[in-house]
Amino acid sequence: MDINTIAHGLNTVWVLLAAALVFFMEAGFAMLEAGFVRAKNSLNIIMKVFIDCCAGLIGYWAIGFGIMYGADKLGIFGTSGYFVQGSMSNLPLLKQFGLPVEVYWMFQAAFAVAVATIVSGAVAERMKFVPYMVFSFAATAIIYPVAGHLIWNPNGIFAKMGMLDFAGSAAVHAVGGWASLAAVLVLGPRLGKFKKDGTANVLPGHSMPLAALGAFILWFGWFGFNPGSALNGLDGSIAHIVVTTNLAAAAGGLLSALFTLWKYGKVDASMTMNGALAGLVAITAGCAYVNLYSAVIIGAIAGVIVVLAVELVDRIHADDPVGAIAVHGFCGSFGALAVGLFASVGSSKGLFFGGGFKLLGVQFLGLSVVSIWSFGATFGIFSLLKKLVGIRVSADDEIEGMDISEHGIRAYNQTAIDDSIVLEDDDIEIVKSKAVIGKQANDIA
Amino acid sequence: MDINTIAHGLNTVWVLLAAALVFFMEAGFAMLEAGFVRAKNSLNIIMKVFIDCCAGLIGYWAIGFGIMYGADKLGIFGTSGYFVQGSMSNLPLLKQFGLPVEVYWMFQAAFAVAVATIVSGAVAERMKFVPYMVFSFAATAIIYPVAGHLIWNPNGIFAKMGMLDFAGSAAVHAVGGWASLAAVLVLGPRLGKFKKDGTANVLPGHSMPLAALGAFILWFGWFGFNPGSALNGLDGSIAHIVVTTNLAAAAGGLLSALFTLWKYGKVDASMTMNGALAGLVAITAGCAYVNLYSAVIIGAIAGVIVVLAVELVDRIHADDPVGAIAVHGFCGSFGALAVGLFASVGSSKGLFFGGGFKLLGVQFLGLSVVSIWSFGATFGIFSLLKKLVGIRVSADDEIEGMDISEHGIRAYNQTAIDDSIVLEDDDIEIVKSKAVIGKQANDIA
Amino acid sequence: MDINTIAHGLNTVWVLLAAALVFFMEAGFAMLEAGFVRAKNSLNIIMKVFIDCCAGLIGYWAIGFGIMYGADKLGIFGTSGYFVQGSMSNLPLLKQFGLPVEVYWMFQAAFAVAVATIVSGAVAERMKFVPYMVFSFAATAIIYPVAGHLIWNPNGIFAKMGMLDFAGSAAVHAVGGWASLAAVLVLGPRLGKFKKDGTANVLPGHSMPLAALGAFILWFGWFGFNPGSALNGLDGSIAHIVVTTNLAAAAGGLLSALFTLWKYGKVDASMTMNGALAGLVAITAGCAYVNLYSAVIIGAIAGVIVVLAVELVDRIHADDPVGAIAVHGFCGSFGALAVGLFASVGSSKGLFFGGGFKLLGVQFLGLSVVSIWSFGATFGIFSLLKKLVGIRVSADDEIEGMDISEHGIRAYNQTAIDDSIVLEDDDIEIVKSKAVIGKQANDIA
Repeated sequence: MDINTIAHGLNTVWVLLAAALVFFMEAGFAMLEAGFVRAKNSLNIIMKVFIDCCAGLIGYWAIGFGIMYGADKLGIFGTSGYFVQGSMSNLPLLKQFGLPVEVYWMFQAAFAVAVATIVSGAVAERMKFVPYMVFSFAATAIIYPVAGHLIWNPNGIFAKMGMLDFAGSAAVHAVGGWASLAAVLVLGPRLGKFKKDGTANVLPGHSMPLAALGAFILWFGWFGFNPGSALNGLDGSIAHIVVTTNLAAAAGGLLSALFTLWKYGKVDASMTMNGALAGLVAITAGCAYVNLYSAVIIGAIAGVIVVLAVELVDRIHADDPVGAIAVHGFCGSFGALAVGLFASVGSSKGLFFGGGFKLLGVQFLGLSVVSIWSFGATFGIFSLLKKLVGIRVSADDEIEGMDISEHGIRAYNQTAIDDSIVLEDDDIEIVKSKAVIGKQANDIA
Repeated sequence: MDINTIAHGLNTVWVLLAAALVFFMEAGFAMLEAGFVRAKNSLNIIMKVFIDCCAGLIGYWAIGFGIMYGADKLGIFGTSGYFVQGSMSNLPLLKQFGLPVEVYWMFQAAFAVAVATIVSGAVAERMKFVPYMVFSFAATAIIYPVAGHLIWNPNGIFAKMGMLDFAGSAAVHAVGGWASLAAVLVLGPRLGKFKKDGTANVLPGHSMPLAALGAFILWFGWFGFNPGSALNGLDGSIAHIVVTTNLAAAAGGLLSALFTLWKYGKVDASMTMNGALAGLVAITAGCAYVNLYSAVIIGAIAGVIVVLAVELVDRIHADDPVGAIAVHGFCGSFGALAVGLFASVGSSKGLFFGGGFKLLGVQFLGLSVVSIWSFGATFGIFSLLKKLVGIRVSADDEIEGMDISEHGIRAYNQTAIDDSIVLEDDDIEIVKSKAVIGKQANDIA
Repeated sequence: MDINTIAHGLNTVWVLLAAALVFFMEAGFAMLEAGFVRAKNSLNIIMKVFIDCCAGLIGYWAIGFGIMYGADKLGIFGTSGYFVQGSMSNLPLLKQFGLPVEVYWMFQAAFAVAVATIVSGAVAERMKFVPYMVFSFAATAIIYPVAGHLIWNPNGIFAKMGMLDFAGSAAVHAVGGWASLAAVLVLGPRLGKFKKDGTANVLPGHSMPLAALGAFILWFGWFGFNPGSALNGLDGSIAHIVVTTNLAAAAGGLLSALFTLWKYGKVDASMTMNGALAGLVAITAGCAYVNLYSAVIIGAIAGVIVVLAVELVDRIHADDPVGAIAVHGFCGSFGALAVGLFASVGSSKGLFFGGGFKLLGVQFLGLSVVSIWSFGATFGIFSLLKKLVGIRVSADDEIEGMDISEHGIRAYNQTAIDDSIVLEDDDIEIVKSKAVIGKQANDIA
């Protein structure tokens, strides 16, 4: 038994389990988003997340991984690693940590899927399923991989400039968040979301327990998301990372709770959940680079930003049913910049720790470019899909709900059959129409 | 500190965490099955899964493990290891990987419980609770252990013939799936499932979000199920296994989505979920033996098989409310055979990789025997229980729902009490009958 | 690469993942408690658990950890380690196992949060949110840390006396359970819980599937709770611990099922779930010290105790909607004492294994002191809060439900808007009052 074999085995086990945790975040997204939308569209949004896992894994396997981590071309995309073939000798970390390419792919793939899923929430309740599948594939095959290449490929433009985005406040969350903004601008708001006077109606989600379950699962998944990004179980850094991560989440949730209590007189439930997620998103870039106090401050600020950002997004008439733009776009961007302010662990220092404006400038530049790329590419794809096949369900379908129009079934179904009738005449055609079954339940639930 | 101590510690940690993931699949089964059945039976099906965990762990501890992994007798059963006592020196892998017997038991026990649980879904909505408990104990104490002995005990008949069933497409899933078929044939279909003309009624499940949550949890659990079966974190094979596993799942879900879109004009939600599970079930035998392309093909084929198999099961009037026979029986069998076709990693090659028909023949033989054993043993036990104590609830109970008849409570309850009345007269006997409380809610939900 | 680096890395990875599992138990508590209460209070109870995570992590970071594990003063509290600063050289285990302080904090913090959350269930459906936040902070900052110091700080009074409480039947569960009793005695029962003749009304929970999901998640989390407490992946003890843990859970659930079947004629669903949790709570102290047979016996006894304790708690008019006092108070206490009876692994032997009454006496003493401390401190804080700000919502709010009164939203919402009306006149003020939206749904669900 060789000592390096054991070190490599430990890293492989660690990254595999971290990948499992990150992948499980898809369940969290699905429940959070389903809970935040109306019952009549709740299955459809879950199916979009589910198809992210399917189409997204295939897309990131066939194309995305090669673009993101393949041998570099121009600092922008990769030319090897497609279908996860080849040794990826251009990634020295794999050799250093003894990670098999495949486990590295699995971990990265879970991130790619998350980017697509962030958008699924923003376009909920009105976007057609098949064009969404196309976007989901494009997001994991191209949009995210290019952004990721710029920041995380060792030869990516911003990687070489020294940008610090440990687990992806910029590469994952801002990319997903600003893609969401582009998507909803092309798609338009839901029927009835905005009044003629321009103010917004509240369209409350159908199940806060489901949403809360999702928030808990996402928090749980972040135990893999951030410390797993160390790709290494041996130097103890994961201990620091897991603590900054969780303190920022706690501070984010606590501040959202207190801020809404002060502002509205009650602790807002969905804001508190989104506040914890905002703290997690914001600390994702800096989790390895900031100290514990800074982590608390970053989380707390994110917890306030998310409340204000939700209001702002409403004000510009971008209809985002789950708050994806506020949580991922705004707080992801804040988190990427916060590294430029608070970095104190490691050689690059932030503005508040004597590093001057250099790091902050790099963070700003990298963040801006990947945000514009993501916004622009998504805007383009959505516009193209809109022209070619249409991206929005009909008004009738939107009113009836997409669970019926897209999947022919309701999320919640009444007992389907009056058995006592069947006993008298078991030949009766009881199931007259799928659209009728469960109608009452969904009108209520 | 000795280097072997660390290697053994790593393997122990790895297998323990994999066991936790596999055991958590019980939550997935419970939610999936509950979502797919009607509200009035949803608690009962969850309780059956819960009791699998209780009775099943005890059964596999006292008896099952000894039968499966004890010192071999006739290649069919074991004679040591009962109550997880003794050193199990007949299992060289434990020594090789430095695994304590107990952690090995925990991992295997989670599999045993899963086999019983597969059946719970098929018999949902009409099987009595107490006879189910007896079956659950028998499945984990005898039925599964004998099948597992044949394939996985180092001296089992098919193990010695070179059968390859890495994590149990045959030993776990086909065994559970064909046991399910036997069970529903003895039990008969639910009231109202089939019309006089022989066609099937659709009895839609009551909560697709719950079912989807279950599917996500199951997928998550497979991160332990397949790579954990390596029992070893040191040789890097788990990296390959996790990727074949997830690609097959993605391909299965994607193909089910596309196939139902083509066939029915809409993406069928429950089929897409079952498609991903079908891909997972099918790759379970071959996850360590096939390359990534083969994994995608196997998953994709399973995604189509499951759709056709659900229709076929209906056509033979086997009433399986959750699709257990299609997912586990058909796709487990396909997966076991697929190893004989696609095996390319390791020394045994499949038909498509120059290995000829030899491996395929062994796979077919082993699969056939454990399937017949499982079907026959379950048929026997169910027939015996039917004769001795009855296995089916009364028609009245079936109509009212088993949550009331078996547990005296409804899964979903209305606010139980009108507090305003209580305030006027807190002596009032408000809770008149458990059967009335919550009735309205369950009629609807 | 140094061999100790790898050993320390393995322990760090192991404890981090165990911490993730324990932290995820908060999702389990939230779902279990929400399922066991009425729909109108289900969001509120979830928010209390969520705020435990937020306020509790901050409280245990700033104060609690220092009190619990800082350099000892009088055997009762610590004087270093506040804000998780300093090297904690007073904890030799960290050096021995190579654990960074931060990962150790994360694991311990997940326990602290659990203690607060145990109380959240007992005070459900009538306690105000803001005073609960204050209590949650106090529980994680002071109440639990002092109890933990007494038992687990190497210089704690009972630690030095040789008390054995491996993962906290006493330090966590009895402390949380008896704090719950104090809390509900100060708070009083829910409106309508008890009749004039003193007997109890049944106020059934609104969603048994949600409760069951919670129970499954808690069981899953115990894979981290107990074996993680070894803090060490290297000596194989975690294999034994995971098996005693799961066998006790299985025996607890099975006995509760059989006992209620015998007593009431039906398998009681919530009792069976609580029975498995009771087994887990009871084995938590002894999981590393008892053999497998003892584990089964301890779990089985706990499965009976919990049923009787729920009845007893009702009889003394302590209104505990989720059974927290029975599960955590009674079975935690039983588990702590059971070590004094059944300990057989390691140097300290219990009464039944030739150790005489010595260990039993220490266990009894330590348990008594932390129980009295926890009960008294909670009684004091609740009494103070009652006097200063009030801890109970108004009768009107209690009748309407706390989701509306505390958070201005219902847990389950009807489709918020009749889109067809909006189409005719999208200026209409549809959302007239939050209190009206979703009312019908919550009246039913």
